[in-house]
Amino acid sequence: MEKKLMELISENKIHKIRSELLKMNIVDIAQILEEVDKHQLVRLFRILPKDVAVGVFAYIPVELQQHLVESITDKEIKGIIDDLFIDDAVDFLEEMPANIVKKVLKNTDEDLREVINQFLKYPEHSAGSIMTIEFVDLKKEMTVKEAIEHIKITGVDKETIETCYVIDNNRKLEGVISLRKLILSDETKKISELIDNDIISIKTTDDQEVIAHLFKKYDLTAMPVVDNENRLVGIITIDDVVDIIEQENTEDIHKMAAIQPTEEEYLKTSIFKLARHRVPWLLILMFSATFTGNIIKRFENVLQSVVILAAFIPMLMDTAGNAGAQSSALVIRGLALGEIRPKDFLKVLWKEIRVSLIAGLTLATANYFRLLLFERVNPLIAFVVCLALFLTVIFAKVIGCLLPIAAKGIRLDPAIMASPLITTIVDAFALVIYFAMATWLMGL
Amino acid sequence: MEKKLMELISENKIHKIRSELLKMNIVDIAQILEEVDKHQLVRLFRILPKDVAVGVFAYIPVELQQHLVESITDKEIKGIIDDLFIDDAVDFLEEMPANIVKKVLKNTDEDLREVINQFLKYPEHSAGSIMTIEFVDLKKEMTVKEAIEHIKITGVDKETIETCYVIDNNRKLEGVISLRKLILSDETKKISELIDNDIISIKTTDDQEVIAHLFKKYDLTAMPVVDNENRLVGIITIDDVVDIIEQENTEDIHKMAAIQPTEEEYLKTSIFKLARHRVPWLLILMFSATFTGNIIKRFENVLQSVVILAAFIPMLMDTAGNAGAQSSALVIRGLALGEIRPKDFLKVLWKEIRVSLIAGLTLATANYFRLLLFERVNPLIAFVVCLALFLTVIFAKVIGCLLPIAAKGIRLDPAIMASPLITTIVDAFALVIYFAMATWLMGL
Repeated sequence: MEKKLMELISENKIHKIRSELLKMNIVDIAQILEEVDKHQLVRLFRILPKDVAVGVFAYIPVELQQHLVESITDKEIKGIIDDLFIDDAVDFLEEMPANIVKKVLKNTDEDLREVINQFLKYPEHSAGSIMTIEFVDLKKEMTVKEAIEHIKITGVDKETIETCYVIDNNRKLEGVISLRKLILSDETKKISELIDNDIISIKTTDDQEVIAHLFKKYDLTAMPVVDNENRLVGIITIDDVVDIIEQENTEDIHKMAAIQPTEEEYLKTSIFKLARHRVPWLLILMFSATFTGNIIKRFENVLQSVVILAAFIPMLMDTAGNAGAQSSALVIRGLALGEIRPKDFLKVLWKEIRVSLIAGLTLATANYFRLLLFERVNPLIAFVVCLALFLTVIFAKVIGCLLPIAAKGIRLDPAIMASPLITTIVDAFALVIYFAMATWLMGL
Repeated sequence: MEKKLMELISENKIHKIRSELLKMNIVDIAQILEEVDKHQLVRLFRILPKDVAVGVFAYIPVELQQHLVESITDKEIKGIIDDLFIDDAVDFLEEMPANIVKKVLKNTDEDLREVINQFLKYPEHSAGSIMTIEFVDLKKEMTVKEAIEHIKITGVDKETIETCYVIDNNRKLEGVISLRKLILSDETKKISELIDNDIISIKTTDDQEVIAHLFKKYDLTAMPVVDNENRLVGIITIDDVVDIIEQENTEDIHKMAAIQPTEEEYLKTSIFKLARHRVPWLLILMFSATFTGNIIKRFENVLQSVVILAAFIPMLMDTAGNAGAQSSALVIRGLALGEIRPKDFLKVLWKEIRVSLIAGLTLATANYFRLLLFERVNPLIAFVVCLALFLTVIFAKVIGCLLPIAAKGIRLDPAIMASPLITTIVDAFALVIYFAMATWLMGL
């Protein structure tokens, strides 16, 4: 299918291309446009009917949007911007350089321009910057029949009509009613008898993390956004929330690997930006690890007399890091999903202590026999190694579970208390315990 | 509010409790039920009107569902199961012990029992096990008016009426039409003129990962599920997909921390299960780290003569692990989101090589001056350390980006090629390079 289309494109069969494209979903059309060269992109975009073109525009990557806007006429730009949903138009403008924004705004009606400017002022990731203003509002006094008539007349331009919002004369939000309920109710009933007063709403300044949490908790498909006076100013729909959820997850995964998170796609990020997002953490962690090195320096004489002790350092350090990483990852994820709350820290600690006893004992025993039977290590040295291993696993799991909760407690992101930082901390501990055990038990 | 309710509950003021509860969202009622003792749970559950009770039932944790089912009468059970959406009923039964399943099925009508049994046979996480069968189906020949009438009559029991499915007499899926389009169209139009033939559907056996991917790609809110003959058997709705997305993310985060993933909430998982999901990986990684230890053993004489070299081992190992973890986390996440495809591996490699040159050079330079100026290390040793550091960062980033892609290539989950495994591999390399440089440059 796609291959056939590419052939048609290379053969320049405009009519056939058009009819093929129109059989496709706008998301797939957008993908085709991504794959052709920039000259073809503009040509193909222009043969699309306007409603399809607007849909496709919202789905192509920022750099192609920019290229299109630079290549088409002012009139065409106006057509697109007028028909885009406000939130898509704002998403697009937020990514454009100033001259493009100017060019676009010059070509929009004053009303729309004002709305867009308003949107561009909301802080990034706030409900205000994510919401759309294309929703259906109803009045309490309407009957179901009147409400449905109202929807039929005004609904075409709305991003969602599945959930409608009931407001008073001051635009204060009074309730919510679903299209479903309207359709399934008696036509003569009043909206006031049907509305749901238990409204879950958010403020324009609320962060997207809160939004995602509420959508998940209440299985919502749309949510009203209100200003400080509880006046309805917009709505957020589930499709945007799905993107937010993935963004939040990406952010956590990046932070957990000691990367300053970015929303750009990996392949589209410049190497300098990639480096800038990684090197600071690497430097901090490298200098912190020096501290661990200093512990070895302090015990240099121990090492000098039994140099074989050095051979177990990697195993101890790696196991410490892994044991701590497991606990911290579980707790970070639990906190993110709301399954663990900071006040649960004693429960978590108690669980991790018991788990670490099981894990530590298993690992130490397995390792002891391996060292004795397969590596033929002196039993005293094997004992020192395995005792240090046991204590280290317990310490690592305790630190691994407590630090993310502590971070949450002081309003830091728990995700930074993941493997890299935990590893650095528990490595130092592992070595202190190891050398202390060696000094003590082997009389060094 | 919640506190006031708890007071009422302890004072046993049934009528007041009931009216307070009925002001709340079912999700919040479920949360209240979670917090009271088991005896109160059953009493509170029983004072709820049936439609609310069924909604609340779907939201309480498995162990409380089980307790309720064990405590209420057969007739009450039947009432709940009949009114639950099929997918919620199946989710619940899947978690119940055999005797409860028997008790429940005994109390359902034969038709429903058959449907439930059918559902229980679908593989876990397949579209069949997630879908619901409560959807609206329409015929092509209907007019818009007839379709809306049909929805009004049959819609009450449907999980979603916002998207309707058009089928032929053999239940073959012919198209999709949204309630929105029905409402906004002329009443006399035929469904056949309005339906969207570009259907995105899945098979009952498709995995939830595929489902989540399609929902995200096409911004869907519902998707039809068909059998091998393209007959419509169910639909999947966005609220279930949001849960799937979070589940898939949890799974990735757990795997990336060397934990065998589980769907149970952390606080509700037994310590033995927690240990069982962690110890195997810790053992594997511990034994792999022995390999790294053996490298130190091989270079024991080098270490013996310049024991200070040991002091830089933690810094080298940690930095290697962190550099590798960054690359692997970025690539694993990129693969999961479909931003990176296996065929992009050369692009990724080339990016990582350049990033690692920048990172390696920065780290090595910073460290060199720190060693010279603050630690007063012999310049030759400092040079050996920093050269090893530089080479290690490059190697770590290359390995870190390639292994996840390779895993994907051979149909393994890329998430296992994360920090723990990468660290073990690059640690070994770091030490070989370090000692090789030391032997060579210091003539040991």
